[in-house]
Amino acid sequence: MNMRTIEWKNNKVRIINQSKLPLKLEFLELGNLGQLWKAIKSLQVRGAPALGAAAALGVYLGIKDSKADSFKEFNFHLKRVIRYLGTCRPTARNLFWGMERVLKVVSTAQDKPVSYLKKLILQEAKRIIEEDCVACRKIGDFGEKLLKNGSSVLTICNAGALATIDYGTALGVIYRAEEKGKKIKVFASETRPLLQGARLTCWELDNRRVDVTLICDNTAAKLIADKKIDLIITGADRISANGDAANKIGTFNLAILAKYHKIPFYIAAPISTFDKKISSGRFIDIEMRPADEVRTILGKKFIALANAKVLNPAFDLTAASLISAIITERGIIRPVNKKNIRKILEK
Amino acid sequence: MNMRTIEWKNNKVRIINQSKLPLKLEFLELGNLGQLWKAIKSLQVRGAPALGAAAALGVYLGIKDSKADSFKEFNFHLKRVIRYLGTCRPTARNLFWGMERVLKVVSTAQDKPVSYLKKLILQEAKRIIEEDCVACRKIGDFGEKLLKNGSSVLTICNAGALATIDYGTALGVIYRAEEKGKKIKVFASETRPLLQGARLTCWELDNRRVDVTLICDNTAAKLIADKKIDLIITGADRISANGDAANKIGTFNLAILAKYHKIPFYIAAPISTFDKKISSGRFIDIEMRPADEVRTILGKKFIALANAKVLNPAFDLTAASLISAIITERGIIRPVNKKNIRKILEK
Repeated sequence: MNMRTIEWKNNKVRIINQSKLPLKLEFLELGNLGQLWKAIKSLQVRGAPALGAAAALGVYLGIKDSKADSFKEFNFHLKRVIRYLGTCRPTARNLFWGMERVLKVVSTAQDKPVSYLKKLILQEAKRIIEEDCVACRKIGDFGEKLLKNGSSVLTICNAGALATIDYGTALGVIYRAEEKGKKIKVFASETRPLLQGARLTCWELDNRRVDVTLICDNTAAKLIADKKIDLIITGADRISANGDAANKIGTFNLAILAKYHKIPFYIAAPISTFDKKISSGRFIDIEMRPADEVRTILGKKFIALANAKVLNPAFDLTAASLISAIITERGIIRPVNKKNIRKILEK
Repeated sequence: MNMRTIEWKNNKVRIINQSKLPLKLEFLELGNLGQLWKAIKSLQVRGAPALGAAAALGVYLGIKDSKADSFKEFNFHLKRVIRYLGTCRPTARNLFWGMERVLKVVSTAQDKPVSYLKKLILQEAKRIIEEDCVACRKIGDFGEKLLKNGSSVLTICNAGALATIDYGTALGVIYRAEEKGKKIKVFASETRPLLQGARLTCWELDNRRVDVTLICDNTAAKLIADKKIDLIITGADRISANGDAANKIGTFNLAILAKYHKIPFYIAAPISTFDKKISSGRFIDIEMRPADEVRTILGKKFIALANAKVLNPAFDLTAASLISAIITERGIIRPVNKKNIRKILEK
């Protein structure tokens, strides 16, 4: 793909509308903060690293027309925008990280005029985008060494180009291995309820001519038992200081299956996904999503009674002890523990 | 429910069309073997115990208009019908068991006229139906002792009234516990690809006013880790002589999760589900189903590219060592092993 998941274009945020894939490739132009908030909430743009860029650009959308003429007033406006954006998806660390990055550059230039601060924010958002592209390729470089020619990889949800700017974390590892001449076989778990595996991962792997087979989430245990999977790689939405990882619901299932069958379970994620202020996974806030995501298929057809009681957590937690290694742009963390994570974060 | 999943009525096989539930309660009348074959293949009637009855009635549909006037000719016709019916769902043991039951009564009456043999077959099919009702209630009696007031049970697919004649195996255990005054909380795993959990299990539990919550299959690990599940009960489609069980794809996942979290994993199944000729699960033939079951939701909306490569096994295998106990109409098998199974089968 020569297109980016999210970019700044014609004074607007342009995103690929991921809720329409794979049946339609549609771009959306988001000209104000409310539109961006809705796009994130409804998963038109999703994936932890992509949300880092979306958040920073969102802050710019929120303040670009600010009439503030003092730092104090501007800062008040800025904080309000940040609080609002933070309400849309509580679990993804990168969303908050993107906003913190922007806050930080502003805080170092308090004596500058508001027009300059606005420029700084847009600049920082663009920097986040460029850094993400570099980080994904580095993750790919470190991670591809874990794959052999002929390796068979299981993944869930989408931690690919569509979850980042243009390359991916878990899928970036696979793309890099393929670029190095290894043939990789991928199994994509469809990822109910919102089917990011079936819709997004299969689509982008197919676009890049990587051999991909779609399975129902229920099929993983059989597939591993049948020796069809060498390793599992997923992304992450937030990783605590001790290495517990929140990721798409179903990831914890896979980590337990990997342990039972004695195959490696890897997470690929940029440094921006780590939350060193959270000591353990049990303090990570898990987003609960609407019942109709489960009662229907993509909001269209009801598959259960319209009043069926539903529990729909968007994420689960995988304990550090179940994670064989975390692949970051600064190297591989193995074994996954507080000390090794601190070492990488301080690099 | 005061209706039966399958019955003989007006010289036809009347079934609840399970592919239309829960949005519509529709009955189908099947007047010939071809119609019944299609109904089984397309899962309009499904569930291992119900298929035992369907198979026996199917044999009757297949031979009731036979013009044979000798046993030899009739037997030839009968065997052809049985071969044909056996092609529709290879994994479900009860399908074959139902046909074997019918064959056996015929073989003991070879000297009787063809018209009499036909009557014998219908009689035996009706006997299978009545026996199933009794067996399910006995399974309920033995199984309900494993549940406490307030127990929280996770199940997958549908092993309820809709999988049997009118009560269920795994769900029969829950119904019996409720009849005994225990309050049970059920979590139903939706069961992709064909969503029997969301469509059938939630519907019938709701009809009987049992507290049921629908979850995506991906949610099981988190739910168990959050201490929301006390035990898991599922049905089975075929159990080998050593206690390995083939059941709906995803069951093996749950058994591994149960072991990891140290909660009991039970199977509830009638004796007719056991296949003593198969020594171990690895010799059980696993039915592979069409890719479009995964590429679409219930054949309606495509969720993946129409040419996506798919692997869609209908069942997986759970090793006996992962099964805490098997609940049958003759008692509870625990621990699950060859010796204890033989003892129950010879009772």
